[in-house]
Amino acid sequence: MSLTELQTAMTLLFEVFDKYAIKEGDSSTLSKKQFKKLLKNELGGALAVRTFYNEMIRDFNGDGQVDFTEYMVLVVGALAMSCYDFFQQS
Amino acid sequence: MSLTELQTAMTLLFEVFDKYAIKEGDSSTLSKKQFKKLLKNELGGALAVRTFYNEMIRDFNGDGQVDFTEYMVLVVGALAMSCYDFFQQS
Repeated sequence: MSLTELQTAMTLLFEVFDKYAIKEGDSSTLSKKQFKKLLKNELGGALAVRTFYNEMIRDFNGDGQVDFTEYMVLVVGALAMSCYDFFQQS
Repeated sequence: MSLTELQTAMTLLFEVFDKYAIKEGDSSTLSKKQFKKLLKNELGGALAVRTFYNEMIRDFNGDGQVDFTEYMVLVVGALAMSCYDFFQQS
């Protein structure tokens, strides 16, 4: 049974998180270094990564690691809304 | 230039929201009916949609409509975490 679009999007979100989380340390969290790499590779020029990254760093719960929940809230929520506004205006 | 995995996931999330939002009324929000249809079609048996739907209905801001932000927070956040826990255990 093939995945629906929403299921495919969810799977991709997991895969991206895992791709960077497993590289070093706790495989269920991203270090700041891994998170920065994720943003740079996955978003590159699409977004002023540096400004966005600095903003997000402040949102962490202070343990220096980005767990899956934080990843979802930060990356997906913030981005989706900024991109969605963009699509709405164009 | 092809999209990265994260960009593809984001695009899919928009497309799913738009697919249901444009069907009737305000094209930037989902009515409860549209939202239920989205959950049923996009998640079907993958999740006890009814229990999940009832839970989410209570989270709305009371205007009876699901805007994109609510969609992102509810569907993506809640699902990703429940599915991610599932993947972590298996």
